[in-house]
Amino acid sequence: MSGTFTSTICALATPTGIGAIGVIRVSGPETFPIVQKLFQGKNLSQQATHTIHFGTIRDEAGQIVDEVLLSLFRTPHSYTREDSIEISCHGSNFIIQKILRLLIKNGCRMAQHGEFTQRAFLNGQLDLAQAEAVADLIASDTEVSHRAAIHQIRGGFSKDIAQLREQLIHFASLIELELDFGEEDVEFADRTQLRQLIRNIRQTLRPLIDSFELGNVLKEGVPVAIVGPPNAGKSTLLNALLNEEKAIVTEIAGTTRDVIEDTLVLSGIKFRVLDTAGIRETSDRVEAIGVERSLAALDRAEIILKLSSTDVASAEFESLFAARVPEPGRVIRIHTKADVYADPSADLSISAATGQGIEELKQRLVDRVNLERTNDTVVTNLRHYEHLTATDTALQRALEGLDAGITQDWLAMDIRQSLVHLGEITGQITTDDLLENIFSKFCIGK
Amino acid sequence: MSGTFTSTICALATPTGIGAIGVIRVSGPETFPIVQKLFQGKNLSQQATHTIHFGTIRDEAGQIVDEVLLSLFRTPHSYTREDSIEISCHGSNFIIQKILRLLIKNGCRMAQHGEFTQRAFLNGQLDLAQAEAVADLIASDTEVSHRAAIHQIRGGFSKDIAQLREQLIHFASLIELELDFGEEDVEFADRTQLRQLIRNIRQTLRPLIDSFELGNVLKEGVPVAIVGPPNAGKSTLLNALLNEEKAIVTEIAGTTRDVIEDTLVLSGIKFRVLDTAGIRETSDRVEAIGVERSLAALDRAEIILKLSSTDVASAEFESLFAARVPEPGRVIRIHTKADVYADPSADLSISAATGQGIEELKQRLVDRVNLERTNDTVVTNLRHYEHLTATDTALQRALEGLDAGITQDWLAMDIRQSLVHLGEITGQITTDDLLENIFSKFCIGK
Repeated sequence: MSGTFTSTICALATPTGIGAIGVIRVSGPETFPIVQKLFQGKNLSQQATHTIHFGTIRDEAGQIVDEVLLSLFRTPHSYTREDSIEISCHGSNFIIQKILRLLIKNGCRMAQHGEFTQRAFLNGQLDLAQAEAVADLIASDTEVSHRAAIHQIRGGFSKDIAQLREQLIHFASLIELELDFGEEDVEFADRTQLRQLIRNIRQTLRPLIDSFELGNVLKEGVPVAIVGPPNAGKSTLLNALLNEEKAIVTEIAGTTRDVIEDTLVLSGIKFRVLDTAGIRETSDRVEAIGVERSLAALDRAEIILKLSSTDVASAEFESLFAARVPEPGRVIRIHTKADVYADPSADLSISAATGQGIEELKQRLVDRVNLERTNDTVVTNLRHYEHLTATDTALQRALEGLDAGITQDWLAMDIRQSLVHLGEITGQITTDDLLENIFSKFCIGK
Repeated sequence: MSGTFTSTICALATPTGIGAIGVIRVSGPETFPIVQKLFQGKNLSQQATHTIHFGTIRDEAGQIVDEVLLSLFRTPHSYTREDSIEISCHGSNFIIQKILRLLIKNGCRMAQHGEFTQRAFLNGQLDLAQAEAVADLIASDTEVSHRAAIHQIRGGFSKDIAQLREQLIHFASLIELELDFGEEDVEFADRTQLRQLIRNIRQTLRPLIDSFELGNVLKEGVPVAIVGPPNAGKSTLLNALLNEEKAIVTEIAGTTRDVIEDTLVLSGIKFRVLDTAGIRETSDRVEAIGVERSLAALDRAEIILKLSSTDVASAEFESLFAARVPEPGRVIRIHTKADVYADPSADLSISAATGQGIEELKQRLVDRVNLERTNDTVVTNLRHYEHLTATDTALQRALEGLDAGITQDWLAMDIRQSLVHLGEITGQITTDDLLENIFSKFCIGK
């Protein structure tokens, strides 16, 4: 892992398409001399960092390609910590391509996906978890996913983890030292303190690990299944929630054969609402597939809206449902068509026709999720989750080993493992494959 | 026309879509106080123009919306000549919308199409012809249209016109003075000098007016018609020029019933290549429509590629063609299928099968256009062309009037008219309708 790159990279940092301006990023040791070759207006080498300069970009023949503004950033005061320049030009694809070609002719190469952020990471500007959050931030489309990404970019749990790792490294080195003494039965590492540290670390890890399930659900959307006997009003409810006509609503039982999935954002939380085929015994083979899909949707739903209506009461559905969903915790029992029939035993009575209960239902969905959100530190990244879990497992083994009086070399191995896993979260330990895998998901120019 | 706006406007200046960064523009007297309300990191009022500052944008609840870079521009050193700030944020639509909403809540309003450039014009940063060229520049997609737009942005013919107009104003005021003296027969304006000035102005206008036909053609694409008897190889040639399979090529005479239009860029010049149905007498009513379209395409083509081939020689086609295109200047006579038959009398022999002559044909197309391009000052804007022509007509009338010894009031009217037309080109004379019409074609954020 080195902080010194010899190449100077360039890329369009703004989206392609119709806009007033485009911004081209250049970063690397030759940034200033390369841009100066194209730029007329000022001697860039004499300008301070964080200043803006007007001038023209010219081609080899001296023809003006565009009037531009240059934003100068001098090492280490840039995103990448390298010398960097942002060229703000007119938003013409023709001009942008021409400037990029001129930069490349004069010694730049095109940046790869996420290469600016990768340099920021490798040069110590961001840790790996922060760098990953940059991509999450750009992709964020709800209040909740945005907040988790911003929290992570600002440091998030990285600082805690790095600190705990430092302490663990201290003990690890003492234990490694014990190993050096081989057969002599010395103990440099205080076992009581070590136990306490491991317990502390696990106490920090636990809520992070627990937050993943919620974090992941918040990132991908909370799956909500709508189920009920045929004609209970499932598609109608979905449409009422979405305020549009996505599902086909008819009065023929068994109309909805596919699981329709739609996204609903309430109070900044994304819900994936699954509409399902009616659950019932059927001899129709195509409909049977739909019934099986409904049952599968039940399994992966965080929240189940179980619809019933007096006119379509179905003992068959009730028994099928009870067999598949024994625990009532995820279920909100909703009585539909409340404008026609009443059922005081339901959790909530609604009517898509009059709008009764729809807003209350939305509020209940939001409340259910918010109950579980205790703080902003939410792990949304599968990679982090896996390393956190692996760390916890290794530490648990170490603790059990300490109790059982295992030998130093086994203890050392468990601690080494947890150090590796913690280090991989923040990027203190990386491999080329890992970096390739992470940054290839970024857009070019970031 | 006033340089003082009281409102502060904001808009996204970069395209929407997936990108690393987005840039939001803010301009107007309240720019600094409004942005400061959202921004934490520095006291903006103490920062110099053309400097860049890192910090965070926060919402009403103090939650971080994003980490951003602000580029500060202080009046009059900005595009609009007003206080302006560009906010460079992460390229997430969620973040961009949130920042725009916060700006509006704190006193900005959304900019209208082209409003930043309109302010730049009204505040004297650009004349109207330059402002119009900004939109042309963003839309430019070839070397030639780009060069014309850049030339115009850099001043183009505006300076000449403004200068000539100044001199004409001098004479106009003298003549108006003569009118004030009414019946007394005084001449403050030297008629010989006035004649000379009018001739000078017309000499400047003439090449500009003449350049429009070419300029417009270069902007829209030079229309090239491909014609010939059925099966002469028209669609095959089009495909060879385009290097792809756009037209349907079959061996049944009369296959191509619609005029296919395709764009070909050669050496930075855009050509609109019109493929046409074979020209021949036909009794098929649908085909007859195609034949008529071919003939119409001939009329609007700048260059006609007239194909012939020994195996399909057609006296009928020759006579139809000669009747429609009596002048040979626009025609390049091309003998096709040169790998099978030879015809030394043609201008050029080609074979789409072997590629023979295709490159030479492309070169000839480029040379034809370049012959007419004498300099970079090319009028591409219909509005400019109409005012230039109207000025010229008024000046011609004035000159004829001077020769015929017309009265001062007629002379004054002609000169006034030409002043108005010249002034409307550079925007020294404008109406709200004109500005509305020009800037509504811009994108928002420019």
